[in-house]
Amino acid sequence: MHLERLTNTIIEILRIPSTSGHEEQVRAYLEEQLSHLKIPSSMDGSGNLIATLAGQGRPLLLNAHMDRVPPGLGHEPVLRDSTLYSDGTTNLGADDAAGIVIILETLRRVLEHNLPHPPLVIVFTVQEEAGLCGANGFDAAIWNVHDGIVFDNAFAAGIVVSQGASYEAFDVTITGRTGHPGKDLASTINAIDIFRATDYPHGSLANDQARINIGRISGGCARNAIPDKVTLEGEMRSFEPEATRETYKKTIRTAFEDTAQRFGGRAEVTFKTHSSGYTINTDEPLLKTYQKVLAQRGKELELQPTFIGSDTSGFRPTINAFTLSTGVMNEHSVEEYVALEPLEQLVQDTLELFKLW
Amino acid sequence: MHLERLTNTIIEILRIPSTSGHEEQVRAYLEEQLSHLKIPSSMDGSGNLIATLAGQGRPLLLNAHMDRVPPGLGHEPVLRDSTLYSDGTTNLGADDAAGIVIILETLRRVLEHNLPHPPLVIVFTVQEEAGLCGANGFDAAIWNVHDGIVFDNAFAAGIVVSQGASYEAFDVTITGRTGHPGKDLASTINAIDIFRATDYPHGSLANDQARINIGRISGGCARNAIPDKVTLEGEMRSFEPEATRETYKKTIRTAFEDTAQRFGGRAEVTFKTHSSGYTINTDEPLLKTYQKVLAQRGKELELQPTFIGSDTSGFRPTINAFTLSTGVMNEHSVEEYVALEPLEQLVQDTLELFKLW
Repeated sequence: MHLERLTNTIIEILRIPSTSGHEEQVRAYLEEQLSHLKIPSSMDGSGNLIATLAGQGRPLLLNAHMDRVPPGLGHEPVLRDSTLYSDGTTNLGADDAAGIVIILETLRRVLEHNLPHPPLVIVFTVQEEAGLCGANGFDAAIWNVHDGIVFDNAFAAGIVVSQGASYEAFDVTITGRTGHPGKDLASTINAIDIFRATDYPHGSLANDQARINIGRISGGCARNAIPDKVTLEGEMRSFEPEATRETYKKTIRTAFEDTAQRFGGRAEVTFKTHSSGYTINTDEPLLKTYQKVLAQRGKELELQPTFIGSDTSGFRPTINAFTLSTGVMNEHSVEEYVALEPLEQLVQDTLELFKLW
Repeated sequence: MHLERLTNTIIEILRIPSTSGHEEQVRAYLEEQLSHLKIPSSMDGSGNLIATLAGQGRPLLLNAHMDRVPPGLGHEPVLRDSTLYSDGTTNLGADDAAGIVIILETLRRVLEHNLPHPPLVIVFTVQEEAGLCGANGFDAAIWNVHDGIVFDNAFAAGIVVSQGASYEAFDVTITGRTGHPGKDLASTINAIDIFRATDYPHGSLANDQARINIGRISGGCARNAIPDKVTLEGEMRSFEPEATRETYKKTIRTAFEDTAQRFGGRAEVTFKTHSSGYTINTDEPLLKTYQKVLAQRGKELELQPTFIGSDTSGFRPTINAFTLSTGVMNEHSVEEYVALEPLEQLVQDTLELFKLW
């Protein structure tokens, strides 16, 4: 019966469209659900929906994000063998509706069965997919909470993310000099040639401790003109210390600048740090408590590092949050799916964690 | 006084906006000017404006094109030292208003002074800049004309283009496989990496007998995704025989296809021939006649090959046309300018050519 309600709830959420910056319909749904439970909620300056439930002991933050990557359409998902699949027109949206439904179901059971629980700060964030904007904008000081769980997909359900990679976006603008390809070429500087000649670090580096990828390129404005501009959008993910990351950044910057200069052009490289990465301390009290919950049912705590960002990076280090994986697979694609029974297990584990915390 | 009228006329034309496919205002102006001269004109299926003037001897085609490259704004040009400059907001548009004004002034003088002239077929073409569309669409058979002059910019005024390069556009689509750059990379295929790894012939080749340029690139759809698509727009200009050009095309195609295959992706390369190039025979009667005109005033015929397309490629080989350069400089840019006295000289030379033809 619990699984049935959880299933119905996640299907309701998946019927609602959502993308980063357009979470309003999911937020309205959650406000309504919380109000059924008589839990007051409000929106903060970033657009996050925040709700609190008084309780005993040290406060705990529970988080899931409301946005999805595009298309993020509301749709009727396909239920087969206790697993939800997309209808094929959109990403399923279990990233992060799975996290949302775990929190909603946990709250319902606490209230229905009057279960023990700490003071809870529920944070449904906006724009996680756009760069953890909601989590970065969350003001932890107001809510007096120092520990928390981020329910989001990473690995199989129940696995905890041990390490989150830093994430830095970079933009490159290469400038040459245009001209007619049928006329004197001596005064032209081909920006695409500069890009091709630049030997910058990319791909998987340092035994997969860092990854550098250029995801977009755009250059030139006409077939019959020497291209005088190329713009690149890149990113760097790394588990390495800041000094090492600075070395990569310098190498990327000088590779483009020096090559452009050699051709007589110029290159500008700018970096923007979205998150600086984190490493969970295995002695953190909340993690130890979760480990006990697992031990009670004969399971061991599994930890895995990830290159993929999550709101955990936004909450830490102010809040000792960790990402508890929901088990959603193939997220960010129409092949996204989620098994429902592991979500029910996560609800039960969270309720058990409330007891032991 | 003649130079003054020529100057006023070209300024009138430059006040009118025109781009490829949007020549209607220039065409309307020319219809009106021709009707003042009692020369009937009509539009053909391509949008070219065609006018005829009965005369004695072998018919002659006179051509200039009505379109300009963007922005092609109508504007008030700057007249300084008998030279017209753009006002700085647009290309001047003397490409090919200079050719148009030479033809208009030639017709006016023929009629005013009752000068000898052959039967004339005046063709003001559309969409020269878009790939010689108007000239390619012109039906020479209807007009029974086998010789002609294309007034267009190439070199200093009065120089004849000896050889026009062939022009072939090519499009490349490289397809890889996308994926999240923070997840398993094994199944991804980076299309930008394929482009960078492809060693295709480009730049100036074979002692500048051929030029291959990629003018536009676009690839990837998000910073945080492995790019699975790159599209390229390229062109090849060549003075070389077809067999050599076919070798280049094959080399380009196999370079992209083989590299893509090596990465596990694929590449599609398609070519489209816009013009197949031509070489003027120095024994052509019209060229010999022009040579005599120059000799009468102590000048030698100058010939130069060009990589730059002109309607001559569209008219030949059906019509033995040649490009007579108007002397416009820095065309296709806001630095475009044209000296006016050489245009007056070209009018006088054309009138003299009518006598000797």
